[in-house]
Amino acid sequence: MSYQAPLKDMQFVLNELANLAEINQLPGCEDATEDTVSAVLEESAKFCGEVIAPLNHAGDKEPSSWKDGSVTTSKGFKEAFRAFGEGGWQGIQHPSEFGGQGLPKLVATPCIEMLHAANLSFALAPLLTDGAIEALLTAGTDEQKALFLEPLISGKWTGTMNLTEPQAGSDLAAVRTRAEPQGDGTFKVFGTKIFITYGEHDMAENIIHLVLARTPDAPAGVKGISLFIVPKFLVNADGSLGARNDAHCVSIEHKLGIKASPTAVLQFGDGGGAIGTLVGEENRGLEYMFIMMNAARFGVGMQGVGLADRAYQQAVAFAKDRVQSREVAGSPGPVAIINHPDVRRMLMSMRSQTEAARALAYVGAAYSDIAHSHADEATRKANLAVYEYLVPIIKGWSTEMSENVARDGVQVHGGMGFIEETGAAQHYRDAKILTIYEGTTAIQANDLVGRKTVRDGGAVAKGLIAQVRAVEAQLGEVQGDEFAAIRRQLALGSSALEEVVDYMVANVKSDVRGVFAGSVTYLKLAGIVLGGWQMARAALVASKKLEAGEGDASFLRAKIATARFFADHVLSTAPGLRTAIVEGAPGVLALEAEQF
Amino acid sequence: MSYQAPLKDMQFVLNELANLAEINQLPGCEDATEDTVSAVLEESAKFCGEVIAPLNHAGDKEPSSWKDGSVTTSKGFKEAFRAFGEGGWQGIQHPSEFGGQGLPKLVATPCIEMLHAANLSFALAPLLTDGAIEALLTAGTDEQKALFLEPLISGKWTGTMNLTEPQAGSDLAAVRTRAEPQGDGTFKVFGTKIFITYGEHDMAENIIHLVLARTPDAPAGVKGISLFIVPKFLVNADGSLGARNDAHCVSIEHKLGIKASPTAVLQFGDGGGAIGTLVGEENRGLEYMFIMMNAARFGVGMQGVGLADRAYQQAVAFAKDRVQSREVAGSPGPVAIINHPDVRRMLMSMRSQTEAARALAYVGAAYSDIAHSHADEATRKANLAVYEYLVPIIKGWSTEMSENVARDGVQVHGGMGFIEETGAAQHYRDAKILTIYEGTTAIQANDLVGRKTVRDGGAVAKGLIAQVRAVEAQLGEVQGDEFAAIRRQLALGSSALEEVVDYMVANVKSDVRGVFAGSVTYLKLAGIVLGGWQMARAALVASKKLEAGEGDASFLRAKIATARFFADHVLSTAPGLRTAIVEGAPGVLALEAEQF
Repeated sequence: MSYQAPLKDMQFVLNELANLAEINQLPGCEDATEDTVSAVLEESAKFCGEVIAPLNHAGDKEPSSWKDGSVTTSKGFKEAFRAFGEGGWQGIQHPSEFGGQGLPKLVATPCIEMLHAANLSFALAPLLTDGAIEALLTAGTDEQKALFLEPLISGKWTGTMNLTEPQAGSDLAAVRTRAEPQGDGTFKVFGTKIFITYGEHDMAENIIHLVLARTPDAPAGVKGISLFIVPKFLVNADGSLGARNDAHCVSIEHKLGIKASPTAVLQFGDGGGAIGTLVGEENRGLEYMFIMMNAARFGVGMQGVGLADRAYQQAVAFAKDRVQSREVAGSPGPVAIINHPDVRRMLMSMRSQTEAARALAYVGAAYSDIAHSHADEATRKANLAVYEYLVPIIKGWSTEMSENVARDGVQVHGGMGFIEETGAAQHYRDAKILTIYEGTTAIQANDLVGRKTVRDGGAVAKGLIAQVRAVEAQLGEVQGDEFAAIRRQLALGSSALEEVVDYMVANVKSDVRGVFAGSVTYLKLAGIVLGGWQMARAALVASKKLEAGEGDASFLRAKIATARFFADHVLSTAPGLRTAIVEGAPGVLALEAEQF
Repeated sequence: MSYQAPLKDMQFVLNELANLAEINQLPGCEDATEDTVSAVLEESAKFCGEVIAPLNHAGDKEPSSWKDGSVTTSKGFKEAFRAFGEGGWQGIQHPSEFGGQGLPKLVATPCIEMLHAANLSFALAPLLTDGAIEALLTAGTDEQKALFLEPLISGKWTGTMNLTEPQAGSDLAAVRTRAEPQGDGTFKVFGTKIFITYGEHDMAENIIHLVLARTPDAPAGVKGISLFIVPKFLVNADGSLGARNDAHCVSIEHKLGIKASPTAVLQFGDGGGAIGTLVGEENRGLEYMFIMMNAARFGVGMQGVGLADRAYQQAVAFAKDRVQSREVAGSPGPVAIINHPDVRRMLMSMRSQTEAARALAYVGAAYSDIAHSHADEATRKANLAVYEYLVPIIKGWSTEMSENVARDGVQVHGGMGFIEETGAAQHYRDAKILTIYEGTTAIQANDLVGRKTVRDGGAVAKGLIAQVRAVEAQLGEVQGDEFAAIRRQLALGSSALEEVVDYMVANVKSDVRGVFAGSVTYLKLAGIVLGGWQMARAALVASKKLEAGEGDASFLRAKIATARFFADHVLSTAPGLRTAIVEGAPGVLALEAEQF
């Protein structure tokens, strides 16, 4: 159950698909040379493989525990988190002025993937901290930045996101937590928040809660929500820790997976009021929260990719080791099960989907870097629009994919997969949260349909489809069955996607329920087609390199075969998904609630 | 988390799709009148809902435990099993000469579904006992029948199947357990068996282990395996219990799910030899084991249907109860989440697949009844062939389906689904074993391809496809969008299935690995098309009844809508599956093992 970062594939994607050479020409990204990036990735792989990954299964067996308001994390987590901070890993993508490494998101992304693959539960603390850092960078006062950013970026403190309340679930309009101004610039916060990841723990000296709450005169609904910093320990002007704040962990949840990560119920203000300060302007909390959410959503997408890769690696190791039954074509004796066709099919399915999701996410990160750093405003804007279109797909599709991959990982193990000691079952349990938190797949899909597709009349989507079509044309120029197969399925896929985009744009006003009945299926279709696009690009690069005699021929040939598998087995589902969306709404909506 | 047996749908399927009125004309099945069957089903629903279902979640929280070779089952299991036996439920489909009720399999099947839906862990004891009863009925001596059948059928004792050994997994050729003849008609058995469901427990006075082992001169491989009865307590000639046999439970497994059911490691013969008697003839053990296996495989298929229905019921209850967010089309305030289109989509997906799998399984049971009881030998033979074709599909497809349904059940619950207290997560964990035990989906699929499809040149498969085509024609005679949609997708599905059958028959000799690379996908395709066939038949019946003003109009309209959903969302995947099978083998097999 060891983990080895797939450095070869990561570097292939970085350099060949996400164009690192272009990204490191952007202002402020000059340090990210191919050599530096290689060194960073190797160091990260070593740290994640040697320090973090070994804690994964142990943490599942002995989860975090709660006693009298305090949470003790699983054995080794505290020390590992100290090493993580000291290694500078929390700061990898954050500004050097606050102690970060200031590397592009494209470079941070593989490091984050490795961390999640190594240990999903552990990696949640940095993931949430990243969100808090982003929010403060965007909307914090200079004083707040000066007080909080450096310790967060160095890994001395951690951050949390406090959205959900018992009665509200994902519906932020229903948030009831109150913040009462004290006249001295501070507020007293009162309320209960649930599902707070690392809401309490023993890994850092302080925990910076970012809390959504309403001020007394705030308008109803989502327009009356403000964002507050409520630290576990108050912070003095010199940065030292002050009194314990009135924010307490009442309990932690007993969960299906990610058991080492404490999921807290936090009570604010039961002892007179938790002291907080406003972030940015009043009533703009939702906007700031979305900054955290978007960063976190991309991060959860990387959790999907990382978990899928981990499950894949474990399944491959088992399939090579486990000897059972003869080959279907006949063999003198039993063989390693990797030789059985259906085991092979599952491994290829796991592999191809993981690679496709990785490629799409890294390419997404590159769009984000251009959106942040390019000198030209129009370029920034255009790239931001594409990135924002991709975020719900990267989050939603990668995580749905990871559930299936983790499931296949158990299946490859047969009966042993069902025994907890083997470890495959942990991935299956852990994966199930990824399609739920930071917005369920349905919430991602609503965002994709509403804000990202119909609002611009499908313009961004169509722009991407045009890029897919260009790749289809290039595929036609390469000889070989593989390329013909990839081209055929990619063409069917891009047509299906285009038809769906047209359908959504045309019908959203007249039949909003019908269109949203297809939202999740559309998200999956978009993921499959855009993932297929990246796999096709990868196959083209591989073909060129092979022809030129460059690179690792075995790796490149495997890339082409994997792209072909993805085309025939995953992309081939696209026309059926189109049917479900374009023709399937009446079936979704026909019954009255009482008929269920 | 209560369970209410779906009696209305069960009776619809029994009477309208599986033709109970024809089955109860068979010799020996005359007692199964519609009225009697209704009464049996209602009684079963009451027992499962009130006595068995409430133990399900509690058993998950406090699993069976092992101490010093003994297993204590979860609280309430012992008493419930006594009530189960006293109610005559173990004997429902077994001969009245040994104390059973002698009802057709078609009538036993809904009762068994209910039991599994109520409590998968509990229902495993009867499931394995059924297998032991079948094997003894087929191959036991008169003396063995006289000694063992009555107590098994009355629920006084339970049975087990002992196949798997640590080194062998599903590969029975590798079985090493030895049986040494003692010259007095008995054997001494030595060996270790793993994954023995209810291999040790406290629910019955005795446990009858059916054990695969080799006699000293047995040929190698599967042709040298014999079947033995090895009771936990030896049984005296008068049926009373004798000495404790040398078969001991060394440990039980720590599993992902079905935690209340003990999965034992059994050690035979460490204290000098476990005494057993041969069942049937030497070296024919595999054949007898397959009798048990086939009964058990059908039973595991029903576990899939039952679990899916339970997960569906729980998701519906939550979706009606949980109020969150406004309607996408606008609403004054938040609404119950069943009104959100994607929740509706998931519920329809769960519902339609469960109903389709139920219908296919019950129809399969009717084929089995005709195969056993029809007066005409040719009819028996023809029906047996169809039943045997359907068994791997009922096992494989229903269980794969149940994983997806249980997954959606968690998803409908959102964050609450990930919290163990809610109970949705238990179904997700429990479901994962169903595609593994009694032969993984790949093993079912190999059986479907090898023994059930290519061996007869696709004749049975083509016969079923012809029946699907006949239904397509009937669909064309009914007005309405629903029927047009169902017909369109069923036609695409049956063509896809036919093409795949032709491909497999034509290519199995020249490209056996390529054909088997598509085996699991073929199994799923067959399940979807044959399940769609049953849903289409159901819609046709519903339409006729509505036209005639018969029956429950709301139920019948919901059946048509559900069939339509299945067509647009599930059957619509068929052409893509065809591609994966017919075009997808090169992608599965391209890599060398070292390239993974």
